[in-house]
Amino acid sequence: MPRYALKVEYHGAPFAGWQRQKDQPSVQGAVEAALARLEPRAHTIAAAGRTDAGVHGLGQVAHCDMDKDWDPFRLSEALNHHLKPAPVAITACARVEDDWHARFSAVERRYLFRLLMRRAPATHLSGLVWRVNNQLDAEAMQAGADRLIGRHDFTTFRSSICQADSPVKTLDELRVETVQTDWGPEIRFHVRARSFLHNQVRSFVGTLERVGAGAWAPEDVTKALAACDRAACGPVCPPQGLYLAAVRYPDDPFAT
Amino acid sequence: MPRYALKVEYHGAPFAGWQRQKDQPSVQGAVEAALARLEPRAHTIAAAGRTDAGVHGLGQVAHCDMDKDWDPFRLSEALNHHLKPAPVAITACARVEDDWHARFSAVERRYLFRLLMRRAPATHLSGLVWRVNNQLDAEAMQAGADRLIGRHDFTTFRSSICQADSPVKTLDELRVETVQTDWGPEIRFHVRARSFLHNQVRSFVGTLERVGAGAWAPEDVTKALAACDRAACGPVCPPQGLYLAAVRYPDDPFAT
Repeated sequence: MPRYALKVEYHGAPFAGWQRQKDQPSVQGAVEAALARLEPRAHTIAAAGRTDAGVHGLGQVAHCDMDKDWDPFRLSEALNHHLKPAPVAITACARVEDDWHARFSAVERRYLFRLLMRRAPATHLSGLVWRVNNQLDAEAMQAGADRLIGRHDFTTFRSSICQADSPVKTLDELRVETVQTDWGPEIRFHVRARSFLHNQVRSFVGTLERVGAGAWAPEDVTKALAACDRAACGPVCPPQGLYLAAVRYPDDPFAT
Repeated sequence: MPRYALKVEYHGAPFAGWQRQKDQPSVQGAVEAALARLEPRAHTIAAAGRTDAGVHGLGQVAHCDMDKDWDPFRLSEALNHHLKPAPVAITACARVEDDWHARFSAVERRYLFRLLMRRAPATHLSGLVWRVNNQLDAEAMQAGADRLIGRHDFTTFRSSICQADSPVKTLDELRVETVQTDWGPEIRFHVRARSFLHNQVRSFVGTLERVGAGAWAPEDVTKALAACDRAACGPVCPPQGLYLAAVRYPDDPFAT
């Protein structure tokens, strides 16, 4: 069965998350249903990251196995046709080796988190950012973020239902960028690691927001990390500002 | 009665346009209903630009007259409270002179038009951009746009239902910018004039898209303009990429 890598973009709002669920809409379920319109049988796809409810995909990667030998471009076009009107789009498609795996072949994940600083409710960006009322100190947030870089036991920043074998991970990047937009000043967190624990990025951002607001000092982040205690984490922030931005493989399957 | 200038941001999708309508939701109607929650009576507000159905407000400006002497910040907060859950937000509010008028005092309007070039359906940007399948030649579009700058009879680029007294207007800027975004390459048209004819920006963009696609040469834009004939216009593009970006007054009422 020929295997295909799919780059998947989606709006997280209407879904209970990536993973297929019995009674609730999921992104995986939407893509699998579209595949079944092309080859009528049960399909099971695997993805690089299982995003939570409300979390967006920008560069999520999945793979599927087909009976027919599809031209990758035609496969993506056919899937996009059948995915309508769900806010899910296949933005790239490529034939890969039979042993290539969207999750296990991945060597790096990048997340983007968007935080909009303004008092007025969001209109165009509703569901696409975490809006906070107050202006935050981005420099202080970066100083706090710097304390998380490297190989650590991230138990503090891990959901209690996390299923990873070990809380020890290496965080390669946590960059705090301020961008002036037509909607107001936006803070963008660029987060990069080989792999992540459950709720790790939202635990980081929620904690760093406390630093930006002045409620925490940057060194309090070090103390929270060293505590290796979930209770030492700042408040976990809401999901709607979070995007799985990109997944890296030893060889980019989508390189043309 | 104290008069207040309101900066109004809104998502155009759920509205039949800015202007109040008997049987359909409008942005004007939403703001007036929120005002009536604060001071229970009929309110009539005026705006700098009457945007069409689906067109967005980023920096729309309106004014209202109140009975009470409101603190401008409190007025904007109260309006935003009562506007929920409509995607309309008051992003600034200021006390102005009694003879200040959102429409008649304005000396310049700026529009932004966003065009996303990619084959896959839009997800996060659905309703916020005009998506076109093909890559367009931005340089050719700018060459076409340059031919529209200045004082002209814009009959070709004016809707047949336009109520302006004269089709002669001065176009001060029509800049074509290419921006790489996380969703693909986006063309942004920045359009600036003292005032506009009905459907003028969408007529420009629809025509320039034809130039970018290679179907029209830049000099065909000059011919279309010179024809002073609505039939010479390119196809009018859809509304969802259009934003009323800013309105300028001799003195910025929102300057702090």
